[in-house]
Amino acid sequence: MIFMASTNPARGMRDFLPADVRKREYVIGIIKSVYESYGFEPLETPAVENIETLMGKYGDEGNQLIFKILKRGEKLDESMGSLGSDGSPGSLSDLALRYDLTVPLARVVADRRNDLPKFFKRYQIQPVWRADRPARGRFREFYQCDVDAIGSSSMTVEAELVSSVCEILVRLGFEKFIVRINHRDILSGVLTVAGVPESLQTATLVVLDKRDKLSSEQFTSELNSLGLPSGTATRFIDFFSGFFSTEAGSIGEDLELLGEIDFAALARKEISLTADQLKIIEKHIDPVALNQSSLDKISGFAGTHSETQRAVKQLRALLLLLQGDYGRYISIDPSLARGLSYYTGTIMEINVPDLAGSLGGGGRYDGLIGMFGKEQIPACGFSLGLERILVVMDERGMFPPEIADSTPADVLVTIFSEETVADSLKLANELRAQGLRVSVYPEPDKLGKQIKYADQIKVPFVCVLGESEINEGRVTVKNMKTGEQNTIPNIEVATDIKKQLSAVSN
Amino acid sequence: MIFMASTNPARGMRDFLPADVRKREYVIGIIKSVYESYGFEPLETPAVENIETLMGKYGDEGNQLIFKILKRGEKLDESMGSLGSDGSPGSLSDLALRYDLTVPLARVVADRRNDLPKFFKRYQIQPVWRADRPARGRFREFYQCDVDAIGSSSMTVEAELVSSVCEILVRLGFEKFIVRINHRDILSGVLTVAGVPESLQTATLVVLDKRDKLSSEQFTSELNSLGLPSGTATRFIDFFSGFFSTEAGSIGEDLELLGEIDFAALARKEISLTADQLKIIEKHIDPVALNQSSLDKISGFAGTHSETQRAVKQLRALLLLLQGDYGRYISIDPSLARGLSYYTGTIMEINVPDLAGSLGGGGRYDGLIGMFGKEQIPACGFSLGLERILVVMDERGMFPPEIADSTPADVLVTIFSEETVADSLKLANELRAQGLRVSVYPEPDKLGKQIKYADQIKVPFVCVLGESEINEGRVTVKNMKTGEQNTIPNIEVATDIKKQLSAVSN
Repeated sequence: MIFMASTNPARGMRDFLPADVRKREYVIGIIKSVYESYGFEPLETPAVENIETLMGKYGDEGNQLIFKILKRGEKLDESMGSLGSDGSPGSLSDLALRYDLTVPLARVVADRRNDLPKFFKRYQIQPVWRADRPARGRFREFYQCDVDAIGSSSMTVEAELVSSVCEILVRLGFEKFIVRINHRDILSGVLTVAGVPESLQTATLVVLDKRDKLSSEQFTSELNSLGLPSGTATRFIDFFSGFFSTEAGSIGEDLELLGEIDFAALARKEISLTADQLKIIEKHIDPVALNQSSLDKISGFAGTHSETQRAVKQLRALLLLLQGDYGRYISIDPSLARGLSYYTGTIMEINVPDLAGSLGGGGRYDGLIGMFGKEQIPACGFSLGLERILVVMDERGMFPPEIADSTPADVLVTIFSEETVADSLKLANELRAQGLRVSVYPEPDKLGKQIKYADQIKVPFVCVLGESEINEGRVTVKNMKTGEQNTIPNIEVATDIKKQLSAVSN
Repeated sequence: MIFMASTNPARGMRDFLPADVRKREYVIGIIKSVYESYGFEPLETPAVENIETLMGKYGDEGNQLIFKILKRGEKLDESMGSLGSDGSPGSLSDLALRYDLTVPLARVVADRRNDLPKFFKRYQIQPVWRADRPARGRFREFYQCDVDAIGSSSMTVEAELVSSVCEILVRLGFEKFIVRINHRDILSGVLTVAGVPESLQTATLVVLDKRDKLSSEQFTSELNSLGLPSGTATRFIDFFSGFFSTEAGSIGEDLELLGEIDFAALARKEISLTADQLKIIEKHIDPVALNQSSLDKISGFAGTHSETQRAVKQLRALLLLLQGDYGRYISIDPSLARGLSYYTGTIMEINVPDLAGSLGGGGRYDGLIGMFGKEQIPACGFSLGLERILVVMDERGMFPPEIADSTPADVLVTIFSEETVADSLKLANELRAQGLRVSVYPEPDKLGKQIKYADQIKVPFVCVLGESEINEGRVTVKNMKTGEQNTIPNIEVATDIKKQLSAVSN
């Protein structure tokens, strides 16, 4: 009996066949080209980091999800020897897999400050690994597409980040998405003013973070169960009910409601709008005004709480910078919390209809680079989740035809016999020199089988090179879609196929 | 005292700053486009594999170099609990980092046979990890660029692989390189015929493999010390001295010798060639004939040894297929051994002058896919080492100017005051819409400092947007190289800069 190794990829990991890779590269290509157009530069860091670089940066839950690499050789033997005493598995590991792209960036900036410009704008598109329980749409290896601007605390940075991310989504074909924006100081200010004591703020934020998933009764009861001072939960709920819910589901409902409106009838004054419809239209037609009025409400609630007022002022400035092309995608949302503990200012998240969770998010983290012990340097960034973008684009058929129906080659050249292989290879090289992608059938075989293979791999053209063709310096070009075939001189083949290819794509 | 984490990347790993990434992407772009033109398709596999997928595929030394990932949670606790009894560190690990791209390919082919065409031609450009001792040019994370054709044992496959790899090197600007070709059956046939018993063949191959690094005395003495039957070492040495040495150093010497020849004087018959020069010229002018004569020598030595004769016949066929464009780069070398144990037929390696070691190599491995317990499927592939290619290209200044002197943006837009930020962002977006890469200085600052920053990041143009410019709908465009500046209407800016940019690049 022989040992049969499993042929599956490791749990939670995926193999990407050519059609998958082409879709991934299409999306990554657009992301890169937009970031480049904003003056962001590419950075790459190793998959493996020293374990102390990662530990303690992602909270307790994050620490648990870091893949740790076993020590090697003598160092492993030493650690094994001393296991009896402390028994901690941490000492067995000296390296770990990258968990996100932000901490490695902070490390590089601290390490290479003198090699980098004063304002360093970088993008980074690489996989990260998390030992999470795999689930639909949740993988243990997945790509992040990060963009960060280092060195400035100006709101210009946030404006350029949001603007570039919106441009990416628009260029990928997303029409309906919302960039929710909040500020850490608004979050904590609202909690403080509502009467949540410091010691209960973290627990309260956890409840707030899942507000979209709770009914208003559940939300109230969870808040009350925290043991908040009397009246606090009510103040809290009153405050948040003053804002439009922007959870993904309700965006979908919004747009459905709008779709039901017969605008022609409306113009003829045969119908009038319901109050709900009016609210929604107001929201979509003048989001800037709506957002400013959200900030007014926050400001009114915060009263004399100075950190909140300063944050409100910062977001007002940001809204003004964004009011051009992308203002309509923005929604000020004081309930947005974002999990990661390293954010210090603006926080942002992107939602699309019919997708639980976000397409990406980010924020300002002015303290993280300083954790590497050197200079304190302000920073702000945004991370797009490639896998989620791909899931949505796949479900909605958003890929252009040349990506969705990609082929491994434009042409398959057949082989007539062992003696004519060199002729087929020569023809293939001539066609390649003219810019065509050409595959050669690897061995002499019945012509029917070669054509069948061309059909299987969906190559649009086959060049048949039989004995008579070779003697005459000609090639039979078969169009696999129409079935038409013509025998033409060698030197005309590339031009003929390119003409037919461009006729198809037009 | 605060804990200062090291900011270095992990040992043997590297951070790639933007200039590095651009060079890497340039090389990868050419490799991909050539492989695509040959009809190879992209595949990606996870960085992390089940440990049993990798163990036992790379020999004992390979096993030692695999990075192993620590088990997590309960499974780790269980393994720790049972450590006292067996103490094997292997049981602490269930996953490992990808060691090469060939074994994952074999796993995918075995796993997805029905989703893949009969002949599957794939390329794969991804990092691999080896816990090797870091040294100059040897890293623990490095990229491999693999190309493999699955499903055919025809020599057409080898011909297309060699041809595509040659095309890549030529397109990257390499002029002098040699593709050494041998066959596993020639290697073992020569050993057998020379009288090396089966039990000593592996040890003899190890000595043969380092022949380039040994003097002929050392080579003889190492062979003798293996305890070969009398006369065997001499037969061996006589055989190999009949071939041109093709180690990288001697290629360099060859070409230097040729460079010394005054061909004009030669044409006037004022000088004549030395015997060495004549040999070298013969080799470079008619490599096909030379290679056929190498095969004649091997065939003569092998006599009636049928496996060797069959291999010689196969390589003769390969040479005929390659005699066109790339024949002059080929050198039949019966001493080429290649370390990996899974090769079964043709083996290949690329050398360039002045580089110890190879730029890449490959061969036929008809048994590997069958190790995953299902069907036996023939396969042949080639792997280019990205890091080595980059080292050589860097040393020789082979990058085109737009890569060697890349800039983060075409234009920097300045900011006059807090009140005019929106104007600057608007101008930036207009220029981007016209295809320019535009960075915005992130905060109001003295103009001199903004210009200095533009100079630091080597942006070729600055758009100054002061109060008077904004009022007049104009922009001052400064050419950073010439120092010239002109104030022109907003709508002319993109055209003006693009005209100046293309004038520079022409």
